[in-house]
Amino acid sequence: MKRTFSLVILFVAVLFTSAFAQNRVPSKGMAKSAPDGHFHSYEFTRHAVGDNDILIDILYAGICHSDIHMVNGDWAEASYPFVPGHEIAGRVTKVGKNVTKFKVGDYAGIGCIINSCGECSYCKKGLEQYCEKGMVGTYNTPDYFHNNEITQGGYANNYVVSEKFALKIPKTADMKRVAPLLCAGVTTYSPIHFSKVKKNDSVAVAGYGGLGHLAVQYLVKLGAKVTVFDITEDKRQDALKMGAVKYVNVRNENELNGLKDNFTFIISTIPAKYDPLMYVNMLKMGGEMAIVGMPALENTPTINTTMLAMSGHRKVYGSLIGGIKETQEMLDYSIKNNIYPLVEIIPATEIDNAYRNVIDGKVKFRYVIDMSTLK
Amino acid sequence: MKRTFSLVILFVAVLFTSAFAQNRVPSKGMAKSAPDGHFHSYEFTRHAVGDNDILIDILYAGICHSDIHMVNGDWAEASYPFVPGHEIAGRVTKVGKNVTKFKVGDYAGIGCIINSCGECSYCKKGLEQYCEKGMVGTYNTPDYFHNNEITQGGYANNYVVSEKFALKIPKTADMKRVAPLLCAGVTTYSPIHFSKVKKNDSVAVAGYGGLGHLAVQYLVKLGAKVTVFDITEDKRQDALKMGAVKYVNVRNENELNGLKDNFTFIISTIPAKYDPLMYVNMLKMGGEMAIVGMPALENTPTINTTMLAMSGHRKVYGSLIGGIKETQEMLDYSIKNNIYPLVEIIPATEIDNAYRNVIDGKVKFRYVIDMSTLK
Repeated sequence: MKRTFSLVILFVAVLFTSAFAQNRVPSKGMAKSAPDGHFHSYEFTRHAVGDNDILIDILYAGICHSDIHMVNGDWAEASYPFVPGHEIAGRVTKVGKNVTKFKVGDYAGIGCIINSCGECSYCKKGLEQYCEKGMVGTYNTPDYFHNNEITQGGYANNYVVSEKFALKIPKTADMKRVAPLLCAGVTTYSPIHFSKVKKNDSVAVAGYGGLGHLAVQYLVKLGAKVTVFDITEDKRQDALKMGAVKYVNVRNENELNGLKDNFTFIISTIPAKYDPLMYVNMLKMGGEMAIVGMPALENTPTINTTMLAMSGHRKVYGSLIGGIKETQEMLDYSIKNNIYPLVEIIPATEIDNAYRNVIDGKVKFRYVIDMSTLK
Repeated sequence: MKRTFSLVILFVAVLFTSAFAQNRVPSKGMAKSAPDGHFHSYEFTRHAVGDNDILIDILYAGICHSDIHMVNGDWAEASYPFVPGHEIAGRVTKVGKNVTKFKVGDYAGIGCIINSCGECSYCKKGLEQYCEKGMVGTYNTPDYFHNNEITQGGYANNYVVSEKFALKIPKTADMKRVAPLLCAGVTTYSPIHFSKVKKNDSVAVAGYGGLGHLAVQYLVKLGAKVTVFDITEDKRQDALKMGAVKYVNVRNENELNGLKDNFTFIISTIPAKYDPLMYVNMLKMGGEMAIVGMPALENTPTINTTMLAMSGHRKVYGSLIGGIKETQEMLDYSIKNNIYPLVEIIPATEIDNAYRNVIDGKVKFRYVIDMSTLK
């Protein structure tokens, strides 16, 4: 009797697993299998398209500096094979039966978050990135809504995501350039609006890369007077052309003269070791500096609190991407105002080279992978 | 001819120096002559009472934790013999001919600043503590208005100071308790008002000592709901009696539960190593934490900027005492509202013991030296 019961259970379990497996979505992407490995083709499956989910055929995926840190295990343990990518733009090819926000054929995007608990005070305020249970990241995160399977990112041909965490990309968007807005865009947009930057404010962008060049565009659009800081001559003309009133190559010490007590707002996107207090002291009293750049852990800058106390009423805060509501707001605002990253479109075979250039600061300003090149 | 001329010059110089020396003000105080030495009597002179100066007979001088760091050379090179003391309350006994703010017999106070350049943008805004040339500190600072002689502090029988940097102490003040307001008072008053704390705000004071217990009084007076953090049980009843709604002994881990995302304002007066981010994460989004505590350099807490970025829109800033205008405002406000430190009056012979108790966190809450006990 006991044995028969066990067999029945086993049979049901096999049937269930098999049904589950049949509905899983086959996917292929570009993965790394070790920190020092190269990108290679990788076939895997994603969870089935649930009633509230959509399936997106990915057209383009941006390469974010965070991808590099994550796939190399700089910030957290990396689970291999590892498909990065959290700047995703594509087209909806399937919708679950409860989906109302999208229909097949719509453009859709995915940023850094694909789910969150939905119940904590942060989630209720639309701040899913600070979810108390932990947001489910677009890659390398146990998805607690799907048996804790590790999420795989957007350097791939498709993605299954809850409609709530997918962004609507307007039909008028330039799809080649839209993907990086989903991370780099909202990461800079959020603190600029939180700090209420306004016309004629004297502001600064420290670090003129993928994030920085979007920050400059948002600030110029608001009518602020933007000073840009970077460590190279190569980007001076780009910054001025983009509307900055001043470009400072911080490797030329004399260019740093007279900059103390100058700005009402600074956004630091610097992805390497630096001295945050140098910038803090460039704030006017009451001014605010938002830190959004996140270097590898061993290079993380620290702020000495005694030096901060002595610097006076100059505020420092952090900012982590943005919630879904704000990401949609940013996306609509950017497309309406023609704010896009400057991108270089590359085939899937070029990811390794692209990573090297990002690390060397040689990209102007964002690589985007054309997913139609995926083999 | 040349020799005669030289002799005349020498004669004039001697006369001048002698006249200058004659006008110098004899002073006696309590000094240390080495970081590990004991306090001893010390006789010295102060510069003459100039046309814009007043001479103050010191009645009381507070003992600030900074005095201990400074006289031990924890923060900067200490010049010995070293008379500390920058919380000074006394009576005016002489005024220069241009003085209008004081007359003989008035009460007067001195805080941490006795002069500044007067010409930079900070000085012009009444923020002398951030003077670009450097404020002249009440002790251990080259006074660039007086041949760079090193200033000596207020553990002494008198002080000569420009009227501009002396504070008017109202006649109604309790002189025994007023001195610590000149440093500990303004250091806490300034950020509380800068951050615009208001009635019913949920706020916190981290570190319940000389500074912290004044912060609590200012915050309670504003009608805020104050939580106090310290590392001892000994002060729980004092805090509650003072009007705090909650006291947290951070050594009891369970008392820290449920405190994340709670406060709109935190002031940290902690004078030792600690984790600032623990408190930052107790702020609500948009909340502000003011850091005013300054531990010895080797114990200075640092803030990891990546962890700060991940903590979201929670602001940290520093605050350094206050300018003269704000110090006067604080003094008038405190006396009007009966806000004073809890003090223990000690004779000049007890400074060494008092220092030990301050270091061990055993003082409730401020030692004040009765200068009439000076021999």
